[in-house]
Amino acid sequence: MSRSTSILRVRYAETDKMGFAYYANYLVWFEVGRADLMRAFGWTYREMEESGVMLPVIEAHCEYRQPSRYDDELEIRTDARLLSPVRIQFEYEVVRRADAVTAAVGHTIHAALDTDGRPCRLPERVRQAFA
Amino acid sequence: MSRSTSILRVRYAETDKMGFAYYANYLVWFEVGRADLMRAFGWTYREMEESGVMLPVIEAHCEYRQPSRYDDELEIRTDARLLSPVRIQFEYEVVRRADAVTAAVGHTIHAALDTDGRPCRLPERVRQAFA
Amino acid sequence: MSRSTSILRVRYAETDKMGFAYYANYLVWFEVGRADLMRAFGWTYREMEESGVMLPVIEAHCEYRQPSRYDDELEIRTDARLLSPVRIQFEYEVVRRADAVTAAVGHTIHAALDTDGRPCRLPERVRQAFA
Amino acid sequence: MSRSTSILRVRYAETDKMGFAYYANYLVWFEVGRADLMRAFGWTYREMEESGVMLPVIEAHCEYRQPSRYDDELEIRTDARLLSPVRIQFEYEVVRRADAVTAAVGHTIHAALDTDGRPCRLPERVRQAFA
Repeated sequence: MSRSTSILRVRYAETDKMGFAYYANYLVWFEVGRADLMRAFGWTYREMEESGVMLPVIEAHCEYRQPSRYDDELEIRTDARLLSPVRIQFEYEVVRRADAVTAAVGHTIHAALDTDGRPCRLPERVRQAFA
Repeated sequence: MSRSTSILRVRYAETDKMGFAYYANYLVWFEVGRADLMRAFGWTYREMEESGVMLPVIEAHCEYRQPSRYDDELEIRTDARLLSPVRIQFEYEVVRRADAVTAAVGHTIHAALDTDGRPCRLPERVRQAFA
Repeated sequence: MSRSTSILRVRYAETDKMGFAYYANYLVWFEVGRADLMRAFGWTYREMEESGVMLPVIEAHCEYRQPSRYDDELEIRTDARLLSPVRIQFEYEVVRRADAVTAAVGHTIHAALDTDGRPCRLPERVRQAFA
Repeated sequence: MSRSTSILRVRYAETDKMGFAYYANYLVWFEVGRADLMRAFGWTYREMEESGVMLPVIEAHCEYRQPSRYDDELEIRTDARLLSPVRIQFEYEVVRRADAVTAAVGHTIHAALDTDGRPCRLPERVRQAFA
């Protein structure tokens, strides 16, 4: 398992009338987490796409344990592991920095596609990094 | 099981550079679906909140089967069932209207909270509608 | 001047902790308005892009007069007029349907670009419709 | 005039099918800029709201000069000045860090409201900081 940590603050745009961060935004923060994890391994998601491989999400899951609020500083802890030569799973924990409480945990599963939209093998660099 | 159908179009804002609808937006469409399901039962989510009960999400899950694209007309089919006197599960299917292909399926689980943020029983009207 | 009307409901995702619709969402609703205006003229924005012309925004402006809230039904009234053979302006009024109050007014200005990202003339069909 | 600088990266969620950051997101980044400007003056927007004053937007304006793309690092440069004892204007410049090109400039105007939603004077600390 590989790990990286991303820090972000809850934006006003991300709150809702209940006063908490709206639930769909956790999936956006997951995206920030996995981009930073790849960056930590020396290859960005942007460069991977430019090389001709996309990683669309085929499954997303999130469990919401405690709310996060406007201006909360959050830590997104991200791990990844290969499920097969063509699939990769990222795992996430969202932690409120002020009190170290876990706000949410979740995962996403991604399948590699080439530029024609056909399934393909994950790039060698990704398979090595997350084997 | 109870069912309602919501129709919406994919907004440009909801697409991403891959050319498809961004994955977090499906959770927004799920919200549209469950609001319409409650409306179909004669009580809106807004009125329920005004009566002092909120339904924050405690779990969200989505499986992405086929992409949806800008301006696609989508049908959100929503069901609900009580899990307990304090929890309710909504189930969703997102269908592309042009070709009747299922783009995604998913569910959310919600817990009832009173205005002080304490767990409470689901309102009688909700329990009756979705029993 | 040409006009179309779009109807939408404020989503929970679009509210913020102040309890109102977050200000950036009005620009998303403007997008819904101009897509519907083009559709009313028999050519969709999607088809225009597929024909090789994009209309990126070069200026956006919005004045917020009254708030809109979760589940409010809004009417987006959209007009358009050519500023030049390569530029078009859309004008918007966002009206709360329940009380006919204007929530916001605004405009966007767009420049036509070809698929190489170079400025180009607006398509003949657009120039005729909005002349 | 007072100034602060915020650094952020364009998220995949913020791009659209044209491959650029969607235009409404610049208003979200403006919000990040003004929150950071207030923080630089030793009082957060969150604390101001907790003290009973809200600053809803009454006007927003943005001119888009060059696109920004996924994963671009952006610098939001924010200034503020009082327009009156009850109104404040923030001004923004969004700069792509890689090539120092200005992607957009804009402003927002805000009116102070108390917790009952009535116009009120800007807090003393805000008036002093941005006089």
